[in-house]
Amino acid sequence: MSLAWKPGQSGSRVDSEHVFAVILAGGSGTRFWPLSRRARPKQLLDFWGGPSLLAQTARRIQGLISPERTYVVTNSLIHESVRRNLADVPAVQILAEPASRNTAPAIGLAAFEIARRDPEAIMVVLPSDHFITKPGVFRQAVTAACELACNEPVSVVIGITPSRPETGYGYIRLAQQVARRGRLAVYAVRKFTEKPGAAAARRYVQSGQYLWNAGLFIWRASTVIRHLERFQPRMAATLRRISDAGGIRAVRELNRFYPRLDNISIDYALMEKIPAIYAVAADLGWSDVGSWAAVFDLSRKDADGNSRSGPGLSIDSRRNMVYAPEKFVALVGVENLVIVESHDALLVCSQDRSQDVGKVARELESRRMTPLI
Amino acid sequence: MSLAWKPGQSGSRVDSEHVFAVILAGGSGTRFWPLSRRARPKQLLDFWGGPSLLAQTARRIQGLISPERTYVVTNSLIHESVRRNLADVPAVQILAEPASRNTAPAIGLAAFEIARRDPEAIMVVLPSDHFITKPGVFRQAVTAACELACNEPVSVVIGITPSRPETGYGYIRLAQQVARRGRLAVYAVRKFTEKPGAAAARRYVQSGQYLWNAGLFIWRASTVIRHLERFQPRMAATLRRISDAGGIRAVRELNRFYPRLDNISIDYALMEKIPAIYAVAADLGWSDVGSWAAVFDLSRKDADGNSRSGPGLSIDSRRNMVYAPEKFVALVGVENLVIVESHDALLVCSQDRSQDVGKVARELESRRMTPLI
Repeated sequence: MSLAWKPGQSGSRVDSEHVFAVILAGGSGTRFWPLSRRARPKQLLDFWGGPSLLAQTARRIQGLISPERTYVVTNSLIHESVRRNLADVPAVQILAEPASRNTAPAIGLAAFEIARRDPEAIMVVLPSDHFITKPGVFRQAVTAACELACNEPVSVVIGITPSRPETGYGYIRLAQQVARRGRLAVYAVRKFTEKPGAAAARRYVQSGQYLWNAGLFIWRASTVIRHLERFQPRMAATLRRISDAGGIRAVRELNRFYPRLDNISIDYALMEKIPAIYAVAADLGWSDVGSWAAVFDLSRKDADGNSRSGPGLSIDSRRNMVYAPEKFVALVGVENLVIVESHDALLVCSQDRSQDVGKVARELESRRMTPLI
Repeated sequence: MSLAWKPGQSGSRVDSEHVFAVILAGGSGTRFWPLSRRARPKQLLDFWGGPSLLAQTARRIQGLISPERTYVVTNSLIHESVRRNLADVPAVQILAEPASRNTAPAIGLAAFEIARRDPEAIMVVLPSDHFITKPGVFRQAVTAACELACNEPVSVVIGITPSRPETGYGYIRLAQQVARRGRLAVYAVRKFTEKPGAAAARRYVQSGQYLWNAGLFIWRASTVIRHLERFQPRMAATLRRISDAGGIRAVRELNRFYPRLDNISIDYALMEKIPAIYAVAADLGWSDVGSWAAVFDLSRKDADGNSRSGPGLSIDSRRNMVYAPEKFVALVGVENLVIVESHDALLVCSQDRSQDVGKVARELESRRMTPLI
């Protein structure tokens, strides 16, 4: 291996010129209606008046991986918005899927693209729509994972120490601890498991043998390609064909062949099948920001437990989330509500039903109410 | 008496040229924020996309009392809006109080004004911010009351047959029945009582001896003046001085002396004191529209019990009132809410707390948030 790895230097720096970021920004969620729209999915939203989740993702790796070694996979509908969000990333490295095909084709596409540029490349795969409150721990975990992937041709996942029996996430079952990097323990992975039921989730958390799968993967591009060739040979062949075309022809091949790929997640396509996965266990203050209730959890509250974006006043009202930057909102005697206003629509939702906001968007789709979707 | 009264003719027509309407339009409620503002109180609002409550009041007496014999007492802040709402009423008959002084001075001012024009006049006093679903019964009741006031110098009140033990209204305690006019019974009044507690309200309704006081009074202008001179002599003297001035001088006198009058309701100033009051008992489908919850009660509902002004959709949501003509409002898993949007503000209120909306307006007053009040 020729990787210029300098372990320990400055604690949380990835000094290798072979380390690349792959930001996955092709998602198209509907659970943040009326803010999220087809052309403005969650990763482009800014919930707390700062940069978008996507821009925060890029900012989180600043100084760790340079924009020149950052790739983004997104979709053609939001391609321009993503470019504007990531002005430092070379435009040619922002790849637009002609059709969304889930994470396996997206990661595979990036792997072939990066391996062409640097056969020794390590890829750090990052979802673009999550929230992390402990960027320092995140950087330590990425550094540790890169060190592991540099030394051996393994796959590394950064897993989140679970804090509650969440049924909305996939879990990673751990085998024995194999190493320690600073304050972070590294485990061999026994297996990836899908979203559990409530009883199983409680067992998982109590056992101490599980982590949440946050979609943070670190491996050599060549390792990804080797696994794809073994476990998803048709996908690998198609992606190689696209990659080998090069230049303008590659775009034509992408538009022609990419939509024919299986719509399949990296978990299902590879992680549940491949050997030799390591997990770095970390408490990142992580949230997948899965619903308005999750945004509320992450928001600053006043003495009555209300969170607000925008002006207003409350009378005998508790634990409400108000997102209405442009409007004065008065609450009288209400509790546990999500209230979100956009220029053309208003959502009033019970907090324990915020998982169902997607139904609104789907209903609007079925009624073809175009301006609202 | 020279009143050309023709009882029975056409059932519900007041044919006398001596019958005048006095619409009281000086109210300045705050319970309909964010729709109601200082310059747009409840009587100027239109809750169901039709004419304002004030315009409905004028329309209700159409064919019964002509606009030429209609007087309006309002305040200077909304004078112009009231004129625009009542284009048929001669502008000189729309009297603007320089300061709000409650119903006794307002009715007294109209009495002196009308008595100067017609010493034999009968006044039908009408609040401008109530709702009546049975205009036919209303016209019969007014006709019956005018007939009574024409024949004797009595005071007549149209009282509402109570349908529930409401604690928000004043009540009229009845003595014996004295007459019948068509399907309507006429009683002697024992006394006017203020808003009762819950137990007393239940007793009142069960006894069958009480009516709701809806502020509908019918009497000769000369009777009002005579009572004022006896029970409110200072007020009577001031009002006579204003009235006697005439023309431009009257306006000057009004602006100078009216603000010095006691702020006192007609119930307290006269009705609780004077003898010889008759009550016409009627079921008018009446509401004082005292809160957003009352508007909801009067509104058309869908199968889930939601009422809506404006576009939107509901998922698992029941018994909500949405007033947002300009915005698409989605409800998810919420119940018993009042949601009202104006161009600059949004109210989200529990229905059983809609009496407290006035607190929002008062808080805005105390913060001097001028554009919102």
